[in-house]
Amino acid sequence: MTEATRKPDASRRSQRSREAILTAAMELMAEVGYAKLTIEAIAARAGAGKQTIYRWWPTKSAVVLDAFRLNAETQEDEVDFPDTGDLDADLRIVMRAIADECNNPRYDGPARVMIAEAQHDPEFGAEAREAFLLPAITATKERLRSGQRAGQLRADADLDVVVELLFGPIHHRWLHSTAPITHAYADQIVDYVLAAVRP
Amino acid sequence: MTEATRKPDASRRSQRSREAILTAAMELMAEVGYAKLTIEAIAARAGAGKQTIYRWWPTKSAVVLDAFRLNAETQEDEVDFPDTGDLDADLRIVMRAIADECNNPRYDGPARVMIAEAQHDPEFGAEAREAFLLPAITATKERLRSGQRAGQLRADADLDVVVELLFGPIHHRWLHSTAPITHAYADQIVDYVLAAVRP
Repeated sequence: MTEATRKPDASRRSQRSREAILTAAMELMAEVGYAKLTIEAIAARAGAGKQTIYRWWPTKSAVVLDAFRLNAETQEDEVDFPDTGDLDADLRIVMRAIADECNNPRYDGPARVMIAEAQHDPEFGAEAREAFLLPAITATKERLRSGQRAGQLRADADLDVVVELLFGPIHHRWLHSTAPITHAYADQIVDYVLAAVRP
Repeated sequence: MTEATRKPDASRRSQRSREAILTAAMELMAEVGYAKLTIEAIAARAGAGKQTIYRWWPTKSAVVLDAFRLNAETQEDEVDFPDTGDLDADLRIVMRAIADECNNPRYDGPARVMIAEAQHDPEFGAEAREAFLLPAITATKERLRSGQRAGQLRADADLDVVVELLFGPIHHRWLHSTAPITHAYADQIVDYVLAAVRP
């Protein structure tokens, strides 16, 4: 039976089953970590068959990355990178949103697990980087490039490094839990980075 | 028998035994990770008794942190934070040394394990932060403060944030393996950060 000939009920059931599997994977990741996570345990928690999981995802890492994707999509504080023409204001919006994510347990827990597992398993790390980090870096670089074209950033600024100057400090503070992450802190980073790269 | 009345031979044997235990702990951390590491496995690998280990270290995390300490002390590229009066040059020396560490498997492997385990186990994370990260932050802040007194840094610069602007980008690049970490990159970070905080 192909997708087109499937009855609406079967398609809804299938959608519910996918979500149950991804939710189970997310919960188990937080409870036991990636290394000890098994397809069996996900199937049991989701009330689904192992075969159902393997039909949709070839590997454990594929399920987990999709679970992170679903989790990210359902975050309420998800923001697109704004381009109002005011680079300073746009960077503040995004850096404050990142600060909010750091303080949001729905982001904090899974993100820590993902980073920890990436250190043990470079292949998983590469997939996670491709799925989550690189899109954020690309969106930030595009906004910086538009600011550069508008003369708000030095023409010779290395945008890869500017992105790291923005993400690096807040990431370091979050990962090592060295100090609270506030909107004022997010603003401070923007102030320093713009001071470094203004023409 | 107290330390003072112990024969030299016994003391040497004891020192060799400590080092064998810490080396075994370090090797096993890299092989199986902190979660699966057991005192039994360390004892077996080191050819020591479990009781010997428990006599010297009350917990698994205590052994592991000492193992990291021994590993850090035997790094050839270990540097003290220089204070030649030239802040720019001193920061370059330290940031290049950090770049070298990132490219050194003897640092890279254990540091990734330590960070990964800190995400699963906040108590271990707190001990590791206290033992390794905070001393580096303190030393860097002291050097920045001396530069601030010499008028090479804005008087209102927030030194905690300046440290994060230095450490954050290189740490982000290393942890997420997004690009090579070269001396030129270390220099770039110093250039941007000093541009941000010069009076």
